[in-house]
Amino acid sequence: MSQQRRAQATRNAILLAAAEEFDRCGYAGASLSSILSRSGVTKGAFYFHFRSKESLAVTLIQARDDVLPSVYQRWRDRGLDPLRTLIGFVDEMIWLLTRDAVVRAGTRLAAESELVGAAPSAGWSTWERVLAGLLVDAQRLGQLQHWVDPVEAARVICAAAAGVQALADTPDRELDGGTRMREIWRYLLCGVAAPEWRDITPCAGDVAT
Amino acid sequence: MSQQRRAQATRNAILLAAAEEFDRCGYAGASLSSILSRSGVTKGAFYFHFRSKESLAVTLIQARDDVLPSVYQRWRDRGLDPLRTLIGFVDEMIWLLTRDAVVRAGTRLAAESELVGAAPSAGWSTWERVLAGLLVDAQRLGQLQHWVDPVEAARVICAAAAGVQALADTPDRELDGGTRMREIWRYLLCGVAAPEWRDITPCAGDVAT
Repeated sequence: MSQQRRAQATRNAILLAAAEEFDRCGYAGASLSSILSRSGVTKGAFYFHFRSKESLAVTLIQARDDVLPSVYQRWRDRGLDPLRTLIGFVDEMIWLLTRDAVVRAGTRLAAESELVGAAPSAGWSTWERVLAGLLVDAQRLGQLQHWVDPVEAARVICAAAAGVQALADTPDRELDGGTRMREIWRYLLCGVAAPEWRDITPCAGDVAT
Repeated sequence: MSQQRRAQATRNAILLAAAEEFDRCGYAGASLSSILSRSGVTKGAFYFHFRSKESLAVTLIQARDDVLPSVYQRWRDRGLDPLRTLIGFVDEMIWLLTRDAVVRAGTRLAAESELVGAAPSAGWSTWERVLAGLLVDAQRLGQLQHWVDPVEAARVICAAAAGVQALADTPDRELDGGTRMREIWRYLLCGVAAPEWRDITPCAGDVAT
């Protein structure tokens, strides 16, 4: 391994260990020494990459914030209709929010940004903007029920997704996030998608995954 | 004030201060000394009522768990139809989950029960059972769309409520929990409630509040 690649691997190991620790204990509860022992790197190596617990947290929040535009762009590029794009995007984000350590930790830390001392993360309002944009496109194509307000419907879908994430974190969880989100689509799309759109995609929650 | 009432007032002051501290910092981040200074009680008075930070957390989780059955019973006693009972119950729980310091802290601590060392709280699975029971009653009265599975629909409503709570906690929140939940009812009830029921309760989210 070149020196540069080795440095990158060390940095990733630290970030992953930090993500696991923050995800479990929150910002205040996480300890730098636990992160060090989880990652297996020396103190010297750590301080080569990061200044402090705070700088780790800020990096993880940023990593979480960077995921959304790239997932969104990937779904846009598939050229599906706006509603299928929206469902695919949300389902993939749910997968990341419930399974990916870095995204999970970044989300928890963003909710605690006051403690971290970081600028408040755009987080869910970015979701709401992205979803509202897709719903405006869907409305233009006649894919929505006539009573839908795209901004309002975007907030509703966003709250449902946030709930799936929250329930995936509780000790009494019974279902994985993907299954929960599919159940939500089944009921919610009745209020959002035009009947004609639902007729051609009978099991709406499954279409884009 | 009698000695007994004074003791009760002290205990409540400690619990409220603890709720605010746990709500802000989580279990690991909360410090007993901050709780003491918030509550304005002496160390001696504290240890008269509670053994430790852990016993405070367990008490708050229990207080949260006790709220649900009493709110549920109150809505049952009003003798509304099952769907209105369900909406009223959820709306009041949302109010408590987003505004009441003890319920908020108890919910956060329940999600961290592993750290607290408490038995996992039934929390959201109790919600799901209560909602499923009301939906079974509603189905019997023909209030539901024919495709509704009460257990599944209960999980969906529960996830939406959990999302409203989660978003009320983010730094970028724009709406209060009650407004968000009303928006959710507007879309979700299309997939859950029979058109006849919705026809007689045109603005469904508002009926029971």
